[in-house]
Amino acid sequence: MDKGIQKNKAVSLNIPAITGNAPDTDVTGAAARVSPFDRWMARKLLDLLDEPPLALVLWNGEVIACPGKPVTRVLIRDGEALNQLLINPALHFGDLYSVGRIEIDGDLVKFLEIAYRAAASSPKYQRLKAAQTRLFNRPRTNRPAESRDNIHHHYDIGNDFYEFWLDNEAMQYTCAYFPAPDLTLEQAQRAKMDHVCRKLRLKPGDRVVEAGGGWGGFAHHMARHYGVRVASYNISHQQIVYAREKAKAERLDGMVDYIEDDYRNIAGEFDVFVSIGMLEHVGRDHYGELGDVIDRCLAPDGRGLIHSIGRNKPELMNAWIEKRIFPGAYPPTLREMMDIFEKHEFSVLDVENLRLHYAKTLNHWLERLNRHAEKIEAAYDMAFLRAWRLYLAGSIAGFTTGSLQLFQIVFTRGSNNDLPWSRAYLYREE
Amino acid sequence: MDKGIQKNKAVSLNIPAITGNAPDTDVTGAAARVSPFDRWMARKLLDLLDEPPLALVLWNGEVIACPGKPVTRVLIRDGEALNQLLINPALHFGDLYSVGRIEIDGDLVKFLEIAYRAAASSPKYQRLKAAQTRLFNRPRTNRPAESRDNIHHHYDIGNDFYEFWLDNEAMQYTCAYFPAPDLTLEQAQRAKMDHVCRKLRLKPGDRVVEAGGGWGGFAHHMARHYGVRVASYNISHQQIVYAREKAKAERLDGMVDYIEDDYRNIAGEFDVFVSIGMLEHVGRDHYGELGDVIDRCLAPDGRGLIHSIGRNKPELMNAWIEKRIFPGAYPPTLREMMDIFEKHEFSVLDVENLRLHYAKTLNHWLERLNRHAEKIEAAYDMAFLRAWRLYLAGSIAGFTTGSLQLFQIVFTRGSNNDLPWSRAYLYREE
Repeated sequence: MDKGIQKNKAVSLNIPAITGNAPDTDVTGAAARVSPFDRWMARKLLDLLDEPPLALVLWNGEVIACPGKPVTRVLIRDGEALNQLLINPALHFGDLYSVGRIEIDGDLVKFLEIAYRAAASSPKYQRLKAAQTRLFNRPRTNRPAESRDNIHHHYDIGNDFYEFWLDNEAMQYTCAYFPAPDLTLEQAQRAKMDHVCRKLRLKPGDRVVEAGGGWGGFAHHMARHYGVRVASYNISHQQIVYAREKAKAERLDGMVDYIEDDYRNIAGEFDVFVSIGMLEHVGRDHYGELGDVIDRCLAPDGRGLIHSIGRNKPELMNAWIEKRIFPGAYPPTLREMMDIFEKHEFSVLDVENLRLHYAKTLNHWLERLNRHAEKIEAAYDMAFLRAWRLYLAGSIAGFTTGSLQLFQIVFTRGSNNDLPWSRAYLYREE
Repeated sequence: MDKGIQKNKAVSLNIPAITGNAPDTDVTGAAARVSPFDRWMARKLLDLLDEPPLALVLWNGEVIACPGKPVTRVLIRDGEALNQLLINPALHFGDLYSVGRIEIDGDLVKFLEIAYRAAASSPKYQRLKAAQTRLFNRPRTNRPAESRDNIHHHYDIGNDFYEFWLDNEAMQYTCAYFPAPDLTLEQAQRAKMDHVCRKLRLKPGDRVVEAGGGWGGFAHHMARHYGVRVASYNISHQQIVYAREKAKAERLDGMVDYIEDDYRNIAGEFDVFVSIGMLEHVGRDHYGELGDVIDRCLAPDGRGLIHSIGRNKPELMNAWIEKRIFPGAYPPTLREMMDIFEKHEFSVLDVENLRLHYAKTLNHWLERLNRHAEKIEAAYDMAFLRAWRLYLAGSIAGFTTGSLQLFQIVFTRGSNNDLPWSRAYLYREE
């Protein structure tokens, strides 16, 4: 975990290369002056968010704030940054923060929660966002070749990077489960995996197919602790290599087959279909296709579980995250997810919303990322580190403010009557 | 419970008044003859269901069946019955069975399961049904005045009738909960009510509003065992009278207010919104309105639960049931239910599908109905008794074959972070 990683400048988020001061932050020059127009823009920004408890500190030290409110301070380093922020806050804040042209004086998560709540409850902001979404914010598509590019962008940054801040047992880059809120990250990821295995009622010998297996930790866990055979599909080459090596080292390679292929190519019959954290990458237009895949591969009495970030109402992924971090990502509503299930009359047996569990998981990740900040900055650069810090903090705020949900959906074929009489068995040993 | 009930000919299902022999079942006359056309119709009917393991026994004793299959015998008493059955089986079977022009030789539920499965898997039948649904099968609407008529049709038949076969403690005309499958009906209805109360995390002093309170048993249970104050809305006059009397007799009338009014008129602020078995009567076009009502009445950290029959894919209620038993009824899919939740960004926390629990509940009801058959026939008539027997048996088959689901959905406002860390508390004492 704590090994050094090599300088990896090949990995980049393509953020405009302004890693030091912004071009016009020469505080002694003309750009340091704050014009009446700058002040107007700052006030307009606060107005757009319906007068939130935020203070904008301009590059000359001047403070623009709503009178009488407790304030978090947002340091804006140059006029062009302010301008970009006003044009499209959801898109540009990320890049500006990443390169240090905006700083937050205080807790980043708390600031983001304030901003998210203000944005969500401001009709003015919602109108602007809707217009911008219509015009600019088209998530990249997820046909097989594009999926490969999109997934490469995110998951092939380097296993070393993720090792710094994910749990060090199973490298779970998905929501953990904290039945008791003081579990460690490693305990909570184990609890998540066991919770899913119980929901799926795994029994030795079951044939399991996993769509989107990450670094292989869950397939590994199922094979080792539940005696099942797993075919785990993934299109991230680096993850597959990592997973295979680990399975071989622990002599589980006879039980787990890590397959570098698209979920659309899943072949064979299985007792269990499971997918943890892949649906976000599938894309709205492909849920029916995913349903077809499940229908093709699931045995008559088969069980399934899909674990995914979701929404209470349809909304695109934040524009900056979609652009820099997660191309092609889209968190669906339960209604949208029904495209997977309805066509083949799958029966939804159980939905559990673990929203606050993801906030807690992300808190652990952010804390670890910050602990390894120096090494990460040395291996990548400051903008990369700050972008990831913002992404994790913003995701926490998304979950704590209720803009993001985490759904686990258990399903089976509509004709399968082999159902437990209660869910008490999920909780017997807790 | 076991008291005699008075002859109640005013209550009628409006089934054509052929309660004895059908007009052409004079077995000595010309009508007793089976023509080649009759035989063709019988074979066509089996063909429509894709050769199910059924034998059609015609009025002269002749048997038409698919060769080599194990068979349940369907006795068809006259040619016109066969004709009507072929024209629209889903609609006419019910009336023909009710008046005795069709009989089932053997277990009624098993026959219905065979027929439902055959119908569901036969493309020919599905095409016919789709066409007939388009042409004829429009559920009655549920604007307030119509809702009143629709509900009067079903629930104001007479409390005495329901007392014969519902549980004798709380008169729950909704799915019970059998965490152990051998519970009695009374135990399982208590378990259902407690399961719902736990899901809602009721605490003493909570203000609860119930939409569609039936005979008041659940409101009663909440007030008595959880110390909450309940406003229970219902538009069935007979049920309201019954509920008020019972609450007064048990001195709970200070805790429970039974209000004879439409759910759309719910007024005030509440900590909890609950509705058990009303959504089926709300109608597809009114889910948004129901969502508005909930949004208007639910406190910021309020919790809600909706318990409803549902579907895996959109489908109208069986035409005969909609016509004779449940006018205006429609069991929605999860996707359709999201019309309640999405607009106001309610967050779905938990969905549990209790499909087989409803089959078991209905088995208890049918067994009790049959036990009191003589008294019910004396108070109403044979057709009434047989219609209800068919309705309960058909509902069992609907749940066992997976055509019907039972969803319990727990929700809260999207911004409410007062959420339990696990569902283990639901199962602590089981």
